[in-house]
Amino acid sequence: MAEPSGILIKGGKVVNEDCSVISDVYIENGKIVEVGPNLQIPAGVRVINATDKLVIPGGIDTHTHMELAFMGTRAVDDFHIGTKAALAGGTTMILDFVIPQKGKSLLEAYDAWRSTADAKVCCDYSLHVAVTWWSDEVKKEMETLAKEKGVNSFKMFMAYKDVFMLHDSELYAAFAQCKAIGAIAQVHAENGDLIAEGAKKMLSMGITGPEGHELCRPEEVEAEATQRAITIAHAVNCPLYVVHVMSKSAAKVVSHARRDGRVVFGEPIAAGLGTDGTHYWHKEWAHAAGFVMGPPLRPDPSTPGLLMDLLANDDLSVTGTDNCTFSVCQKALGRDDFTKIPNGVNGVEDRMSVIWERGVHSGKMDENRFVAVTSSNAAKIFNFYPQKGRIAKNSDADVVIWDPKMTRSGPQLRQFCF
Amino acid sequence: MAEPSGILIKGGKVVNEDCSVISDVYIENGKIVEVGPNLQIPAGVRVINATDKLVIPGGIDTHTHMELAFMGTRAVDDFHIGTKAALAGGTTMILDFVIPQKGKSLLEAYDAWRSTADAKVCCDYSLHVAVTWWSDEVKKEMETLAKEKGVNSFKMFMAYKDVFMLHDSELYAAFAQCKAIGAIAQVHAENGDLIAEGAKKMLSMGITGPEGHELCRPEEVEAEATQRAITIAHAVNCPLYVVHVMSKSAAKVVSHARRDGRVVFGEPIAAGLGTDGTHYWHKEWAHAAGFVMGPPLRPDPSTPGLLMDLLANDDLSVTGTDNCTFSVCQKALGRDDFTKIPNGVNGVEDRMSVIWERGVHSGKMDENRFVAVTSSNAAKIFNFYPQKGRIAKNSDADVVIWDPKMTRSGPQLRQFCF
Amino acid sequence: MAEPSGILIKGGKVVNEDCSVISDVYIENGKIVEVGPNLQIPAGVRVINATDKLVIPGGIDTHTHMELAFMGTRAVDDFHIGTKAALAGGTTMILDFVIPQKGKSLLEAYDAWRSTADAKVCCDYSLHVAVTWWSDEVKKEMETLAKEKGVNSFKMFMAYKDVFMLHDSELYAAFAQCKAIGAIAQVHAENGDLIAEGAKKMLSMGITGPEGHELCRPEEVEAEATQRAITIAHAVNCPLYVVHVMSKSAAKVVSHARRDGRVVFGEPIAAGLGTDGTHYWHKEWAHAAGFVMGPPLRPDPSTPGLLMDLLANDDLSVTGTDNCTFSVCQKALGRDDFTKIPNGVNGVEDRMSVIWERGVHSGKMDENRFVAVTSSNAAKIFNFYPQKGRIAKNSDADVVIWDPKMTRSGPQLRQFCF
Amino acid sequence: MAEPSGILIKGGKVVNEDCSVISDVYIENGKIVEVGPNLQIPAGVRVINATDKLVIPGGIDTHTHMELAFMGTRAVDDFHIGTKAALAGGTTMILDFVIPQKGKSLLEAYDAWRSTADAKVCCDYSLHVAVTWWSDEVKKEMETLAKEKGVNSFKMFMAYKDVFMLHDSELYAAFAQCKAIGAIAQVHAENGDLIAEGAKKMLSMGITGPEGHELCRPEEVEAEATQRAITIAHAVNCPLYVVHVMSKSAAKVVSHARRDGRVVFGEPIAAGLGTDGTHYWHKEWAHAAGFVMGPPLRPDPSTPGLLMDLLANDDLSVTGTDNCTFSVCQKALGRDDFTKIPNGVNGVEDRMSVIWERGVHSGKMDENRFVAVTSSNAAKIFNFYPQKGRIAKNSDADVVIWDPKMTRSGPQLRQFCF
Repeated sequence: MAEPSGILIKGGKVVNEDCSVISDVYIENGKIVEVGPNLQIPAGVRVINATDKLVIPGGIDTHTHMELAFMGTRAVDDFHIGTKAALAGGTTMILDFVIPQKGKSLLEAYDAWRSTADAKVCCDYSLHVAVTWWSDEVKKEMETLAKEKGVNSFKMFMAYKDVFMLHDSELYAAFAQCKAIGAIAQVHAENGDLIAEGAKKMLSMGITGPEGHELCRPEEVEAEATQRAITIAHAVNCPLYVVHVMSKSAAKVVSHARRDGRVVFGEPIAAGLGTDGTHYWHKEWAHAAGFVMGPPLRPDPSTPGLLMDLLANDDLSVTGTDNCTFSVCQKALGRDDFTKIPNGVNGVEDRMSVIWERGVHSGKMDENRFVAVTSSNAAKIFNFYPQKGRIAKNSDADVVIWDPKMTRSGPQLRQFCF
Repeated sequence: MAEPSGILIKGGKVVNEDCSVISDVYIENGKIVEVGPNLQIPAGVRVINATDKLVIPGGIDTHTHMELAFMGTRAVDDFHIGTKAALAGGTTMILDFVIPQKGKSLLEAYDAWRSTADAKVCCDYSLHVAVTWWSDEVKKEMETLAKEKGVNSFKMFMAYKDVFMLHDSELYAAFAQCKAIGAIAQVHAENGDLIAEGAKKMLSMGITGPEGHELCRPEEVEAEATQRAITIAHAVNCPLYVVHVMSKSAAKVVSHARRDGRVVFGEPIAAGLGTDGTHYWHKEWAHAAGFVMGPPLRPDPSTPGLLMDLLANDDLSVTGTDNCTFSVCQKALGRDDFTKIPNGVNGVEDRMSVIWERGVHSGKMDENRFVAVTSSNAAKIFNFYPQKGRIAKNSDADVVIWDPKMTRSGPQLRQFCF
Repeated sequence: MAEPSGILIKGGKVVNEDCSVISDVYIENGKIVEVGPNLQIPAGVRVINATDKLVIPGGIDTHTHMELAFMGTRAVDDFHIGTKAALAGGTTMILDFVIPQKGKSLLEAYDAWRSTADAKVCCDYSLHVAVTWWSDEVKKEMETLAKEKGVNSFKMFMAYKDVFMLHDSELYAAFAQCKAIGAIAQVHAENGDLIAEGAKKMLSMGITGPEGHELCRPEEVEAEATQRAITIAHAVNCPLYVVHVMSKSAAKVVSHARRDGRVVFGEPIAAGLGTDGTHYWHKEWAHAAGFVMGPPLRPDPSTPGLLMDLLANDDLSVTGTDNCTFSVCQKALGRDDFTKIPNGVNGVEDRMSVIWERGVHSGKMDENRFVAVTSSNAAKIFNFYPQKGRIAKNSDADVVIWDPKMTRSGPQLRQFCF
Repeated sequence: MAEPSGILIKGGKVVNEDCSVISDVYIENGKIVEVGPNLQIPAGVRVINATDKLVIPGGIDTHTHMELAFMGTRAVDDFHIGTKAALAGGTTMILDFVIPQKGKSLLEAYDAWRSTADAKVCCDYSLHVAVTWWSDEVKKEMETLAKEKGVNSFKMFMAYKDVFMLHDSELYAAFAQCKAIGAIAQVHAENGDLIAEGAKKMLSMGITGPEGHELCRPEEVEAEATQRAITIAHAVNCPLYVVHVMSKSAAKVVSHARRDGRVVFGEPIAAGLGTDGTHYWHKEWAHAAGFVMGPPLRPDPSTPGLLMDLLANDDLSVTGTDNCTFSVCQKALGRDDFTKIPNGVNGVEDRMSVIWERGVHSGKMDENRFVAVTSSNAAKIFNFYPQKGRIAKNSDADVVIWDPKMTRSGPQLRQFCF
């Protein structure tokens, strides 16, 4: 986002999470130098007219998997094209995940991810680190990552049995370590045992298509794990962050826990806010397979609406995408067996506009809440607010000029395909 | 209950679950021969005047552990004294548990329990069988027990890690087998991993007294497991019976699941309906230890009231006691470490009067619902209705004459001690 | 139902609310004389073979309005054709409503209803009495009706402003009088003020069609009034019966109140269990108008399913129909103004089969619960159990032989039209 | 708050609703001129060392009734002593209520209130206006007040029957007018009819003491009205603000409505957050009477804890006090009849410290949420943010230096008595 010389954004409506005001914004060297009406600035700086436009903090996508090696293939959005897409959609920072193999060093995986990403990214990024197995060594590496690398969020899987899944006593230990080192615990909340049994059952019944992906892991499998994660986190008094809340029932579990005073944050994703799981029954396999991700989109068509309601009223807190794109050819690995379809959808380019259309344009939230859920709240939770997430003096110049009247040619959530 | 010659119970108010009517009841050879007003019966039969009394189906205690070998000792109520106490309190049938050791044959354990009990019981009894480990052999034995021994209920433990506890995939398999053989699955619903961690934590903090028993397994540990059990049972479409529902939050989980159409039954127990967990903080160790059971009584004093409300409105279905009594000397095994206090309370004699006082006398339920929750519902769930659980022609003569005005000298739930 | 000579129903499965058993039923002079296997009966009696059929207590429709003068016209089902239709569908008793004009005597209205009905009915019937205004005289007449006419249920309207609607302080007084005389209070729960305002608003916006009927009284208008009625009834400690529970939100209000120990019964109706309010948007006016009733069917298509779930688990208790049929010509009174469409649907013939298909056939309830919600519970609430609502010795011979395999040519809820 | 010359607050931790930062704050002429580290300021200005202290936006008390003439007497805190007390407790702005008599002009009442207050206030203030009756004139005056006087909030009473209470159709009209003129509707939510009946009942039973005040209006009377107000407001699409949310059940109604997307704000008050209604049963009459207010404090001792939980998680939004103090002599007007005890408690001085102690010190909320609920949210709802409610350049210098370690000698909510 850095700019060598000054830029003046003139006459726009500066929208932060707490209020909006018509104001100029002056930027130098990648920092916001001044915000105010009718700023007097040096001659010769570039001036951008933002009249009738919103000037908002750049979006932060809390959940991406660029070029992830997964399920026998690799996500096609690499850190270059992925972050370019992010910028095209108004997102100026992504939070990606380091996912070490079971038994492998977290630190080495972190370094590998950094060296891959650093060379390619077009926008700011940061890394969560997944804890895919448990040992004293892992515990120590978590501390090292927190102290020396600034990692303040670790993700644990309750699904992907025998691959990434941790058992309850391991979750307890990992959450306790998060608490000890001051990090936030993240979970992929689905009951991996039930998914494994469900998948066997579906295949044994001859259900091999994408619809089997959802049928083998109905939403109560997600809600159950969400409740369990909250219970375990509370036992060690650790803040919890539930990634990709995909169902009404899981969202309600988060909502009730917050009612009871639990410190838990829920992250819906663009795909879940923009569409639903009826696609899995689409007669065209490639169409249906394109939506396969875990947890799945839900067939209940009132799901996106409720997730947006809860995002509007602060039961859900932030938004990501789980951007992890595979081409049709890659999806075809699971042509005859849904359990082999690489899991992942797109969204990093679309997230901001999906939330604007379904959240703001629909009247569910105002522009300030839009900024909160697309940017500021993420910056607060992951501790880079107000450097990110706010248009203010001394903040990073991660600034987006948003035209609230513009429409996109492809308003639907587009499935990434070659 | 059998009587060699006829008995006429005259002029009482016969109370069944659906209605009450002033009626005579004539009994011969352990069977009810006729119910009606002004019965004409043979001369010479014994006549019991039941005017102003209720004539109700004998109570069925769904949950006892007579003379159970547990935690290094053996429950002091054997099948003789335990069933005698049952009768003294108006209970004419108990359902006890066969609990095989991990790795041991269910059938052999069943036979052992039968031979112990048959020689001693003073009232009718039946046996649930616990599934404490999993293998193809266990699966086969479940079928044999159902087909050849008439066992139609199997209990699985989610607590007692490394002793009785099953993991989620084992629960899935066991519930699926229950479904296949037409039995009902029962669960002890507490998260055993969290209890184990919690107990370590309490002891490491120097908390060794009975209060540690509750602190290491707060009610959300019970609620979580209850939700998980319901989710797993639904995955295999198996009816579920949650034994000893002890907390408001677990009871609400059952309540919500029934709202959603799940076939799930909740069993509160006499101790949980009659008192609360504040006793664990009693200054006298022996007093506090006397209340140690798993799941524990809850410190929230509004717990018994809510459980009774839900029992009244059919969110909870039946009542047991978990009668498993230990003397003070036995409890003292855990003098310096609450995890070694033998778990168990009394109640088999008290259950009917506790529910009458707190449920009927308080105005929460009428006499018909009293019969439903102390007798008829259990008979229905475990498939011996209307042979048991109803005062009607051809039913077993398990008849109790209940004086609604009588009070007991010891109205409190009495702790059994030598 | 009376039969001059004996009838033997042979070999059927006798289904009561608590259990089912293969049994013969012997009837004489309108009474059940004996129930049991292989009954020995006098020669020459009529024998009906009920093998493979269910023998159930005759249905009780808790809510009909035969030949009601309403909204400028009169319901076309009179007591003759209406009760004939009832019998055709397996209903052997209807509970109709006496609805006196504002300011008129309840007693006189009662006598008028009786004389009209007595001459025409083909099945048993009983009468609720509406309290459409309030005065000391009304209060006294309620007592007279209870003591001398055996009326034990009075209905109050919270809707139909300026016609039948009572204000909160009048509801309080009427409920208090119900409590005093031992009757149950019934309410039509909708906020009449909001409906009046909503109707004005719709018409002012040019919405004159049947869809305006629902739009002017969305379901929260029903839920609000339901909550208010429960609050007022609790203030005077009076049991409450909510007629025609039509929406998910109102049903949940009833459900929560029962959770809190309130004595409240909810009555869904056949139309609400069998179909939904999307019909109001049907392009054909006559089709849409045929479904106009108050409270309206709800556009949310998951409504009937939830109502049936709650009926299955005893949050809702009984079923009626609000049978109050108008021909297309009569409905056409509101051709240009939905507020003038006579409110009412059919159902008295269809109720039993709708509940069987959507409740039992779908797997939500068993045959015993079917009997409870179509017959026994109504008999209990209105105090004629076990004379009605049970197949048992000495009960009325209101017996239906039900073929669980039979289908109807018109499985949809049929709209009554000439 | 104005200061003639500059003031530098040095080295404090500036706490806004979104984040905290160590910073200097420079003030001139009642405005914040600069916020930043190590500010360079003119020589000679007054410097206040705020090291280890918090620098927060001045509190805004959303609900006071200074010197209100009510129930035959007048509140003893006038605008002078009341605002002085406010300042002493860290509150720099109060929102008081204009309450016209039934039938009297709103504008004239507004002018009267202004002239009384202007002469006396020590801190900033603003006025809500009550709508205590309905007519076209009232409707017009609301518009005039909004356009010419800047009034943007109007309060309607659902209680105080025959004095201030509006009926549902009047509420509908008043809310609709609020919507039309861009104001927020406020309600005192209690069912006035039920209170009137309840009061009669209590007195007829011989209950004349302060406990009768709560017994005649149990919390469901509040919850019912809250639900009704939300329903009516939604019918006209008007934002709603529920003043003094006093019970768990009313708070849950607000919470559920927000879940459903309703724009509704709930205001707990200091008394309700700090203590409970068990005081009404205090053996000393004067003690008990001191707590009489409407709606009453609730006897359920878990009430304050839940209200604080919901305030922490944004189900409840702001905090007021309903400060309306009467001396013991004034309270004694109701010595023999609780309905004559002037309703009102204190709190304007205590609110900030009560919320700090019970909310922040207890760990339920952080310092940023403290600022939101004591100041910023009120400023946003009533449209003077960020002029008020934020420490930022150009905001009003309503600045409080808060010592988080300090304790008050009287930590309990003090009852105001002469």
